[in-house]
Amino acid sequence: MPRSGENTPLLNNSRLHSRTSRSSSSDSAPYFYSDINSDPRDLRDGAGDFNSIETLEDNHSGNVENPEPQEKDVKIDEEHILKAGFESLDYEVSDNLIYQKEEKDKSSKKLALHWREVRRWIICFLIGVLTGLTAGIIDLGVEKVSGLKFESVKDLVDKCVTGNCMYYPLLVWLAFNMGLVLVGSILTAYVEPVAAGSGIPQIKCYLNGVIVPHVVRIKTLITKVVGVVCAVAGGLAVGKEGPMIHSGAVIAAGVSQGRSTSLKLDFSIFKDFRSDREKRDFVSAGAAAGVAAAFGAPVGGVLFSLEEGASFWNQALVWRIFFSSMVSTMTLNIVQSYIKNHPWELSYAGLINFGTFGNVNYQFMELFLVIVMGAIGGLLGALFNHINFKLTIFRMRFIQRRWQRVIEVIMVAAYTAAFAYILIFFSQDCLPLVENREPMLMQYFCKDGEFSSSARLFFDTPEATVKNLFHSNPGTYRPLTLFIFAAGYFFLACWTYGLSVPSGLFIPSLLVGAAWGRIVGIVLSMASENSGWVNLSFYSLVGASAMLGGIVRMTISLTVIIMEATSNVPLGLPVMISLIVAKWVGDQFNEGIYDIHIHVQGVPMLGWEPLPLSANLSAKSVMSHPVSVFRTVETVERIIRVLKEEKHNGFPVVMDYDPDSSTPQENVEVETFGTFRGLILRSQLIMMLKKKLFVENPNLQKILKDLKMENFNDLYPRYLPIQRVSISPEEANFTVNLEAFMNQSQHVVLESASYSSIFSKFRSLGLRHVVVINFQNQVVGIVTRKDLARYTVESHNGQISIVEKMIIL
Amino acid sequence: MPRSGENTPLLNNSRLHSRTSRSSSSDSAPYFYSDINSDPRDLRDGAGDFNSIETLEDNHSGNVENPEPQEKDVKIDEEHILKAGFESLDYEVSDNLIYQKEEKDKSSKKLALHWREVRRWIICFLIGVLTGLTAGIIDLGVEKVSGLKFESVKDLVDKCVTGNCMYYPLLVWLAFNMGLVLVGSILTAYVEPVAAGSGIPQIKCYLNGVIVPHVVRIKTLITKVVGVVCAVAGGLAVGKEGPMIHSGAVIAAGVSQGRSTSLKLDFSIFKDFRSDREKRDFVSAGAAAGVAAAFGAPVGGVLFSLEEGASFWNQALVWRIFFSSMVSTMTLNIVQSYIKNHPWELSYAGLINFGTFGNVNYQFMELFLVIVMGAIGGLLGALFNHINFKLTIFRMRFIQRRWQRVIEVIMVAAYTAAFAYILIFFSQDCLPLVENREPMLMQYFCKDGEFSSSARLFFDTPEATVKNLFHSNPGTYRPLTLFIFAAGYFFLACWTYGLSVPSGLFIPSLLVGAAWGRIVGIVLSMASENSGWVNLSFYSLVGASAMLGGIVRMTISLTVIIMEATSNVPLGLPVMISLIVAKWVGDQFNEGIYDIHIHVQGVPMLGWEPLPLSANLSAKSVMSHPVSVFRTVETVERIIRVLKEEKHNGFPVVMDYDPDSSTPQENVEVETFGTFRGLILRSQLIMMLKKKLFVENPNLQKILKDLKMENFNDLYPRYLPIQRVSISPEEANFTVNLEAFMNQSQHVVLESASYSSIFSKFRSLGLRHVVVINFQNQVVGIVTRKDLARYTVESHNGQISIVEKMIIL
Repeated sequence: MPRSGENTPLLNNSRLHSRTSRSSSSDSAPYFYSDINSDPRDLRDGAGDFNSIETLEDNHSGNVENPEPQEKDVKIDEEHILKAGFESLDYEVSDNLIYQKEEKDKSSKKLALHWREVRRWIICFLIGVLTGLTAGIIDLGVEKVSGLKFESVKDLVDKCVTGNCMYYPLLVWLAFNMGLVLVGSILTAYVEPVAAGSGIPQIKCYLNGVIVPHVVRIKTLITKVVGVVCAVAGGLAVGKEGPMIHSGAVIAAGVSQGRSTSLKLDFSIFKDFRSDREKRDFVSAGAAAGVAAAFGAPVGGVLFSLEEGASFWNQALVWRIFFSSMVSTMTLNIVQSYIKNHPWELSYAGLINFGTFGNVNYQFMELFLVIVMGAIGGLLGALFNHINFKLTIFRMRFIQRRWQRVIEVIMVAAYTAAFAYILIFFSQDCLPLVENREPMLMQYFCKDGEFSSSARLFFDTPEATVKNLFHSNPGTYRPLTLFIFAAGYFFLACWTYGLSVPSGLFIPSLLVGAAWGRIVGIVLSMASENSGWVNLSFYSLVGASAMLGGIVRMTISLTVIIMEATSNVPLGLPVMISLIVAKWVGDQFNEGIYDIHIHVQGVPMLGWEPLPLSANLSAKSVMSHPVSVFRTVETVERIIRVLKEEKHNGFPVVMDYDPDSSTPQENVEVETFGTFRGLILRSQLIMMLKKKLFVENPNLQKILKDLKMENFNDLYPRYLPIQRVSISPEEANFTVNLEAFMNQSQHVVLESASYSSIFSKFRSLGLRHVVVINFQNQVVGIVTRKDLARYTVESHNGQISIVEKMIIL
Repeated sequence: MPRSGENTPLLNNSRLHSRTSRSSSSDSAPYFYSDINSDPRDLRDGAGDFNSIETLEDNHSGNVENPEPQEKDVKIDEEHILKAGFESLDYEVSDNLIYQKEEKDKSSKKLALHWREVRRWIICFLIGVLTGLTAGIIDLGVEKVSGLKFESVKDLVDKCVTGNCMYYPLLVWLAFNMGLVLVGSILTAYVEPVAAGSGIPQIKCYLNGVIVPHVVRIKTLITKVVGVVCAVAGGLAVGKEGPMIHSGAVIAAGVSQGRSTSLKLDFSIFKDFRSDREKRDFVSAGAAAGVAAAFGAPVGGVLFSLEEGASFWNQALVWRIFFSSMVSTMTLNIVQSYIKNHPWELSYAGLINFGTFGNVNYQFMELFLVIVMGAIGGLLGALFNHINFKLTIFRMRFIQRRWQRVIEVIMVAAYTAAFAYILIFFSQDCLPLVENREPMLMQYFCKDGEFSSSARLFFDTPEATVKNLFHSNPGTYRPLTLFIFAAGYFFLACWTYGLSVPSGLFIPSLLVGAAWGRIVGIVLSMASENSGWVNLSFYSLVGASAMLGGIVRMTISLTVIIMEATSNVPLGLPVMISLIVAKWVGDQFNEGIYDIHIHVQGVPMLGWEPLPLSANLSAKSVMSHPVSVFRTVETVERIIRVLKEEKHNGFPVVMDYDPDSSTPQENVEVETFGTFRGLILRSQLIMMLKKKLFVENPNLQKILKDLKMENFNDLYPRYLPIQRVSISPEEANFTVNLEAFMNQSQHVVLESASYSSIFSKFRSLGLRHVVVINFQNQVVGIVTRKDLARYTVESHNGQISIVEKMIIL
């Protein structure tokens, strides 16, 4: 499959293009119009792979013998790249005459307005139910498969405690784990690579307004669900919570469109929700529903969506998101009550349950210890992220082929199993088996009548282990065992995240944190000579939240998720303090793990605020130019030519300008491209050509009368490429009047406007294009997401400076 | 004190001005430049009163004998007015060269950036602590005063049960109540009228971007705190939760500015936070802290601020808001633990405590009953709001003088006491006094050894009564008593809200709702022959939330507040469903009570979404014009003249235009005012004149070098009026260069842009001015908040149409 940009001159000239800061306005080198896209179908459909730079590399290994050696000397600085291949979402409504007429007709009828609203609620209900069910399926799958594995190994261990055959259960265990993991990784590597990892970075990108190809496909969902069951049951250091968030988002995208292009199904309902704007709103509901199901935290889910998506807070929307979350929690609750054989007893809130912290109390002074633990969490998190970052770079360079990735997963699975076995073998944490209330206790190397508590660390589901670390009685675990467990699991988790298998990061982080938090508690308890003020549950919880905060650096949503998972409001303050401190400390060293992965992949994310120092960067210096424009009445021939030659998605419509006869203006400070009137989108132009809306067409009036906004969205999100629009030679000489179709409310800025003001506009309104005009309202440039995301800051010796990222294709 | 606009020609021509829709572009009648303000100091300082149209009327009664009879025939349609006197907040940063230079210098140093951030956190900490303490003071005050009242009356009742002197305790009770209420109402009416009511509408306005005069003053805070203690202890049907939210906001405004202009204190720290932008961010933290303290709901507090403020979701900001809420909850918790003599036992979450709903369960089928109850709540809420709306109009017309308002409060207090006494007298809800575990049980008209449960409804603090209705055992209250209580309290609460006394609406609504919810539960229980599935707590809670939702129509924040107050996640779904249904049903009839009060006062609030039907309303038809502009180099004389003549706060800076010699252009479609370059604010112009930044000034360079952004904010928010800037006759001929001071990033829209696109811009970016340009970048008009808020929709027979509001001064 052809990769984006491959047939552009840029690829042949130089694959990597770096611009120095602030030179762009006078830069006559190959320009970068940032919304590049060779074939609109292609990009959303096939190109790009989030978890590798396959876009570049796989291609070579596939069909190019000698991989263009001249490029090998250009060193890619993975911290400062931006890939041109990612498309932006368009949260703007194209406000043209047809839209205005239709909206006016529709909204004059109260019922029509209500009906649109009611259908949105129905969709949100469906999203909630389906997400809850999916969470239930994952839960059931993990439980059944793990149970099977456990029973088999337990039988063998019980048989072998006396005989000298302990290698045998080990082998069976290994075989189980590796077999499961093999299935998961093959599925991920060969069927849908974007399903690897937690999916949170990809969803962050989507909510931020960038499409990672394939991220909301049904194939991704299936790979994710099956893969995560295999990975968790296969004993990898992964959780199933992150993947739940991604699953919720995919479900939302599917349901809201009322069809699946992969499955070739179209229910033809919800047609008017086929736009980036509506879809993104529903995807945020889906992500929230995913969080709600994963942690039993409906409010946390809403806040997660807002924290990540957030250019749009709108009462009605947030209310619907909350509804989805609530329904999803309830659905999972009902499903789990059936699984656990207490139907309709609605007390199983999420996939993970932290247990009750009802009687966990703390004293004011202990908040200082919480600060210290937060700092430790920040340091460890930064270390984790640094190692994982280096590993990710290593993987991008050397583990590119699919089979290599599968092998890496298998290796990690084997190593994980071995580590667990060795820990159990050498630790002597045996506890008397009082009564058989808990199902998964094994004797292992303990005496009869005892069970191995260190074995439980590994053999339980990770969720149960977290709960155990929070709540089990003092004395259950020895500090040394906990230390080895925490250290080992830390590196395992770090190695595991980024493997070609669906894998959540929450549970491993919580496990490591709970383990060292418990150690802190035990040490304090010993230091204070068991005076009783040390509550191990409290310290485990604080450790867990500090560790998680240090790695993911999420703030408010994480606090609320933990508050809801513990069902305890007063514990919110220490949790919050540990998260604040962990984030502050960690941020001194690097970014959160999700942001690292996003940036390594060169996704043009926009942060929360404009960069510091950007106050005097002006529109003129950040914009892309020259600009391809169309006249208000444009010839069919030129439209086709421009669409074929250019990759852009939006074109300014101008007056008083002849694009063909114009030669580059010399001796002007900034070249201009005619008086600005509006903006027209590629998809609109193609639809106009397809519908033959030529001025010369005798049926024009009739066609226009029947034309609906829906016609523009029919093919969303995979629009027809221009190559597939058939135009007769006669028609090529016809003209098209763009005035009725262009966006008349297109956002413009004067060339004197600052980077920061444009940034806030982009971020708050979810824009894709901003046209830069001069003081005569002539087009001088266009600003897209990549023009803004291109800059970043670095700090050296307390001085901050702006650096520009390298744009690669 | 002169009222705004009084010395403008408008007032003398016509006090009321109505424009018909869509005619404005060709309208040559007196223009409305919406940001009208005769004297900047005046408006923020003295004019306007939220709770009456005193701005118009008080003035007359004060010094005009015959109140301009020619106006009496113009009927004010209170549903469709907009007052020109409210000023907007300016959330935009004025992005001029000085700002850019300063930001660049500052942000190049990492430490400076951090220091600004750290101080923001310190402020948020202080806001939390002070808000929590204030809540504690209110709580303690109410408790002490109520206790005193109770003890006195109880003694007398106990004495009189045998003798025939029951009139005596009644009189003492009345005297207590009326004395307390008298203090509260005099304070409110004479000291600070804006402290009346819950303050939530005023805070909603502030967060939406409109300043209600005096709303965040220290005098308001004191009146609020003392007044609410008097009102609650005086037995009025009011709560102390709403006032807490207002108090938090005032505290935040004060702390963040590091000074109090009323108290003439200036700590000179936090100087760089003296702008509308920073202040509004802190006020939202204060409001959240208030909610957090009132309900023990830190997350609910954050969501409240977002639901009401919400043009700004920003991770760092929300995180700080959450921190304030958390600190405030904890502070109140600590204070209460001391009040209740269990120091440091952190289990007293908020001012109100719903008690534990741990074992309250429900079946799936009961959700249908929840829907029905939601509908009842919606209907009752709509009725409540309708009655209160009519009452408010009545008050605006006939209860204008201060003494009249005081008398009304006293009347209501007397009536409330009488109603309570009569209910207690006629009801026979006597329960055996098992043991004296509860402090406030009285015998009244019951037999010895019994206490009157209906007396408890009135004599307990309202918070305790809510808790009682939620949790007391079946059989405590007879349905008839509950019905009389609910009906009576409904009308009392309705009458009370809007009185000249600080009064929250949450508790009365919860009380009424809990009472009828309990009735529903009792009836169901009888209908099902006590088969045991009916949980009275559940139905009281659902009734309470439905009632509250039907009145205030808040959504997500209210759900979370109730969830946090009950500490029960599974109950979230029924609560949410009842709120959704109540809102839907209620919205068919009228708006939420807060919005009704806001609209009756003519505040230009901007809703969530552009109006339906507005898709084809264009910038040209909504903008104000003609526009007063300045040239890039302008004479001092003209600046002074324009500033004196005009009320506007922002002026476009243009080239190629001579304002003085220009005559109205004839035969042009839209008059133009020169080529647009930037926007300059009134406060900036005054500062430039004051600092004598004349081109002809030989010291200009030196002054410019020393000039800091802080100099512009020194007097914030009470800028110098132009009348007080002294300019010598010689200086009047000098010129000023505006280019370095104007906002170069000013938002512009083309005249073809639609109302909806301008609306989203305003709402998302918190703007105050948008300049409308034509296709030659010439200024043709300006859009301010009032130009957008001027439109509203009405629906008749399922058809929606746009109507325009009347703008009054």
